[in-house]
Amino acid sequence: MTSTTITVSGMSCGHCVSSVKEEVGALPGVQDVQVDLESGRVTVDSSTPLSDEQLKTAIDEAGYEIVG
Amino acid sequence: MTSTTITVSGMSCGHCVSSVKEEVGALPGVQDVQVDLESGRVTVDSSTPLSDEQLKTAIDEAGYEIVG
Repeated sequence: MTSTTITVSGMSCGHCVSSVKEEVGALPGVQDVQVDLESGRVTVDSSTPLSDEQLKTAIDEAGYEIVG
Repeated sequence: MTSTTITVSGMSCGHCVSSVKEEVGALPGVQDVQVDLESGRVTVDSSTPLSDEQLKTAIDEAGYEIVG
């Protein structure tokens, strides 16, 4: 199990959180996605490590941006 | 055709706008719903007048509040 944490900007409400959860949750091997709206912190548990590119694509598709 | 304008608080993004449009759009006789996210202004065109109660219920169901 790998846990990856990124910070996402632009999420403003629970709907935004849902969009991010949906896109990141669809990546291969992802078992859990936790999002803290206030801080933008997104923590992803997955069975194998996720690449920066995979995460960037998922966050892009949700309509947001990784800032860290 | 009746046009009713209300002001809704709490909408923070495009997803919020979609939720409001969906709930208000489901009221009887509604033909068009226009939402300005910045001002919270919601303008509803309907074939018959909508009651305050109908609008309040729809906005409540979307998860927001009418402020004027």
